[in-house]
Amino acid sequence: MNIAILFGGSSFEHEISIVSAITLKKVLKKSSITYIFVSQDRKFYLIDTDKINSKLFSSGEYKKSKELILKSGAFSIDGMFGSKEVNFDALLNLIHGRDGEDGKISSMMEFFNIPFISPRMEASVLSYNKLYTKFLAESLGVKTVAYEHLSKNDARKITMDYPIIIKPVRLGSSIGVSIVKEASELDYALDVAFEFDTDVIVEPFIEGVKEFNQAGCFTSEWELSIVEEPQKEEFLDFEKKYMDFSRDSQVLSADISEELKKKIQESFKKVYNPLFLGSIIRCDFFVVDGEILLNEINPIPGSMANYLFDDFEGMMDRLSKNLPKEKIITVDYQYIHSIQSAKGKV
Amino acid sequence: MNIAILFGGSSFEHEISIVSAITLKKVLKKSSITYIFVSQDRKFYLIDTDKINSKLFSSGEYKKSKELILKSGAFSIDGMFGSKEVNFDALLNLIHGRDGEDGKISSMMEFFNIPFISPRMEASVLSYNKLYTKFLAESLGVKTVAYEHLSKNDARKITMDYPIIIKPVRLGSSIGVSIVKEASELDYALDVAFEFDTDVIVEPFIEGVKEFNQAGCFTSEWELSIVEEPQKEEFLDFEKKYMDFSRDSQVLSADISEELKKKIQESFKKVYNPLFLGSIIRCDFFVVDGEILLNEINPIPGSMANYLFDDFEGMMDRLSKNLPKEKIITVDYQYIHSIQSAKGKV
Repeated sequence: MNIAILFGGSSFEHEISIVSAITLKKVLKKSSITYIFVSQDRKFYLIDTDKINSKLFSSGEYKKSKELILKSGAFSIDGMFGSKEVNFDALLNLIHGRDGEDGKISSMMEFFNIPFISPRMEASVLSYNKLYTKFLAESLGVKTVAYEHLSKNDARKITMDYPIIIKPVRLGSSIGVSIVKEASELDYALDVAFEFDTDVIVEPFIEGVKEFNQAGCFTSEWELSIVEEPQKEEFLDFEKKYMDFSRDSQVLSADISEELKKKIQESFKKVYNPLFLGSIIRCDFFVVDGEILLNEINPIPGSMANYLFDDFEGMMDRLSKNLPKEKIITVDYQYIHSIQSAKGKV
Repeated sequence: MNIAILFGGSSFEHEISIVSAITLKKVLKKSSITYIFVSQDRKFYLIDTDKINSKLFSSGEYKKSKELILKSGAFSIDGMFGSKEVNFDALLNLIHGRDGEDGKISSMMEFFNIPFISPRMEASVLSYNKLYTKFLAESLGVKTVAYEHLSKNDARKITMDYPIIIKPVRLGSSIGVSIVKEASELDYALDVAFEFDTDVIVEPFIEGVKEFNQAGCFTSEWELSIVEEPQKEEFLDFEKKYMDFSRDSQVLSADISEELKKKIQESFKKVYNPLFLGSIIRCDFFVVDGEILLNEINPIPGSMANYLFDDFEGMMDRLSKNLPKEKIITVDYQYIHSIQSAKGKV
């Protein structure tokens, strides 16, 4: 498999996308990798796979790499004597947060007809925004944690009992998230969250809740990961959480009943199919009183959650050969012809 | 105002986008217009404003125009001796249907930092898909017509009374829409709709329902159009409906009470703010038993509904000076620096 990895982006998670990208080099051992970096000012650079390391980016040295232009059908290197296309079988969108998870990269890859692994545009918008994820889950008959929605200019009234957790609707990776134990702490937590977003959702904070992660995709059949019970402290902050992005060896399966495992897998499939076809996602579930609740959809998990799969590289290969195809629309100008013959030129 | 008009696209509505674009030349009399055509294979062409007419496209002659490349900050003409940027104050996204209304163009303009008039990505995805529009309306406390949702592989069971109207969720302009008067006609209507989309919504068909259209935007203040009561036959087909796209002179205000007008305007504002900032949209409402129901959001109305405004050109100018700005994210590589000093190179 010749895979392009697109990473970086204008995102709060730019740096951990770099960590994710470098980690995948250790995982995709049999593949040829083409690295395409999106700088914070959104230029595309072709990065030498042999030389990639984090310092290349933090030092600014990446600017010496060849800049790429996005055209119909390919990224290309334009030079004095014409342009040369960068070849690969499929592109993996590995930009965490804005640009990658909000749908921009998917929009562009679809527009420019570049085969890509990522949630498509609609799937991105619905999973990037935690409020819209609630709408989606409801329409699919998948239960979620109870919530309230607040916009920046709304009155700051919460009707649910404390402790609560406050989350900006559009950011991943716990950025701007706070646990609020009593009403007196509410204002500060909302101030923090509204620094990052115009909208927040408020959910009950469930002490010691059982959490399980399920990743997977549909290639020509379902390929589901093990179910993981993530290690938790009371609350994972940005840095701690992101050590995940450099994980490259498999973890252990959660010690749960076959019945619970099956329920989690069924919920995953309901969320995934058909909206997320073409992508590898991770869904995080809570189990409360035996009921499975969708906590969040991670549309581009850290290092693609490679550590949850038996055969991550094989799955990537199979997925790259089974990507959804956009419907072809042929314009025949019949309508304009008919206006022209009926009324003269428009 | 120097405005760029982007039109065409890989869309069932490619041709009527051409009609819309040509119509605006008659309306934007004081402005300098730069026309950028998106061919059905998604290449960008700079079209000579003096020579634009529908035959240029139906004959394929447009291919002789200069091709443009999309880069950070501008569309540019690349030649033997370097590249030249195309200059304008703002770009109007006038691509109806796919590419324009589904969020792809907005994603790209935002990514490449080009000032543009259009619903932004999230607004596009939620208004392009009629099912998601229902979710949105519900979350805003705006009432809509009752509905049922069917996916292609669902059992074809409808619980509401006939007559019903069947609509593919993702297309505009009545494409694939059918009125079904009795159960025996259902299968055929669903076959037609599923030719165009994987999902449909089913609504009661309300004979003789009062329909009112409200267009507008927020510049530095609300700028709302007159309320129009569209001319109706039982059902508007594709060609008839699209005569609208060539309308360039103002129509009459609907003869309604001040109270109803105010209710319609309030509903419009609820839908528009803040999700649709930066765009001019038209909302189509039904009035049933004195209640305002949102029928649909038209995110890029035909010829921008110019015929509903007193001072369309002035409004366009004011809007282009009051476009929402994307939040700037600065990457300082602190995280990577801290990993490097803690653990050596990643």
